Amino acid sequence: MKRNTRVSTAVIRRLPRYYRQLSELQESGVVRISSNALGKSMGLTASQIRQDLFCFGGFGQQGYGYKVDSLKEEIGDILGINQGHTIVVLGTGNLGRAIIENFKFSSNGFQLLAAFDVNERVVGTRIAGVPVYHADSLEAFLGENQVSVGLLTVPIAAAQEMGDRLVAAGVRGIWNFTNYEISCVRDDVVVESVHFSDSLLALSYMITQREDREEEKKGEPQ
Amino acid sequence: MKRNTRVSTAVIRRLPRYYRQLSELQESGVVRISSNALGKSMGLTASQIRQDLFCFGGFGQQGYGYKVDSLKEEIGDILGINQGHTIVVLGTGNLGRAIIENFKFSSNGFQLLAAFDVNERVVGTRIAGVPVYHADSLEAFLGENQVSVGLLTVPIAAAQEMGDRLVAAGVRGIWNFTNYEISCVRDDVVVESVHFSDSLLALSYMITQREDREEEKKGEPQ
Repeated sequence: MKRNTRVSTAVIRRLPRYYRQLSELQESGVVRISSNALGKSMGLTASQIRQDLFCFGGFGQQGYGYKVDSLKEEIGDILGINQGHTIVVLGTGNLGRAIIENFKFSSNGFQLLAAFDVNERVVGTRIAGVPVYHADSLEAFLGENQVSVGLLTVPIAAAQEMGDRLVAAGVRGIWNFTNYEISCVRDDVVVESVHFSDSLLALSYMITQREDREEEKKGEPQ
Repeated sequence: MKRNTRVSTAVIRRLPRYYRQLSELQESGVVRISSNALGKSMGLTASQIRQDLFCFGGFGQQGYGYKVDSLKEEIGDILGINQGHTIVVLGTGNLGRAIIENFKFSSNGFQLLAAFDVNERVVGTRIAGVPVYHADSLEAFLGENQVSVGLLTVPIAAAQEMGDRLVAAGVRGIWNFTNYEISCVRDDVVVESVHFSDSLLALSYMITQREDREEEKKGEPQ
């Protein structure tokens, strides 16, 4: 498929949502969906949906809507779900453990190979079947195994150093949960940070807006 | 301050990033910053920054840039950081525990009041000073305390039910980490879901794009 390499960040951020929505539709047995209905379920307009998907070469037939399974497959392809990506987790504290135990890496096209920690109580054990090695052996492991992404859940004080080590050892991306802004000089390595606070502050904004509006309504003459 | 209530989702999503960036600049001792420099540090253009902030009534003086502390304060106000929001956590598994122990609620304007679980081993204990109560006492607690937001980290099977109970008991927002799409009929309640997979798939996309480009380069005549 022809891929348009000049795609806006906003569209890139929506693609995973399409994929997630289509997976849910598929599980519910929906075979075909109009851009109207797909938009409604995602809080987007039909024209927005058509524009987004047009960036990637179209899909869909006028008047027939989208076939759920093939659209999901196409978007999955674009997202790189079939690229055989692999991942390792650095840090097996509560968050690292929660992610290893509960996150469905394989549904997102990633194979979780190993975890690393410095805590001797967890080194040598397995978490949900995933072996935990000592952080000292990170480079050796990355030398022997093709690893696409390193997931960072180490303490802030160790974040930049572990990020640097991952990059030096050849990962293509860092999935950063440390709440520290990893700086990365290599422009062939992608850092994707998960900031819980961005999400809570957006929620805070939306709640505050509604409270303001209710206050205004109360102030209006009955 | 005059607040524009018709602000696009994209701008709302960027506001917390401005707030975070300005907090970091403040900590580094930066007093004043140009829209150019602010934009560069956030991967946005100066004109984008000026447009975004214009939605909220301007700030900044032509040629002088923005005063970091007052801009941070204004954006914090818009985000509702000084509204005295309160929050409770439902579910104290690994993820709930990681968030209770590590997430800086107060920096985001939230006071964490309590956690709830059904596990008798944690009920009655404290996690990082936060009392853990039995989920049965949720309604009683919400009746006695003004709670703005319920954070959900319960198992998927309990997600909708606990969400419904939070809404019935009067919370204004649900911060949803369950990976289940909570449906909420009340349009005065906001559901904000954190989907780790959206972030990983965006990373997967960016890695795949770069790999494709490198492949193309290899294919070009030397």
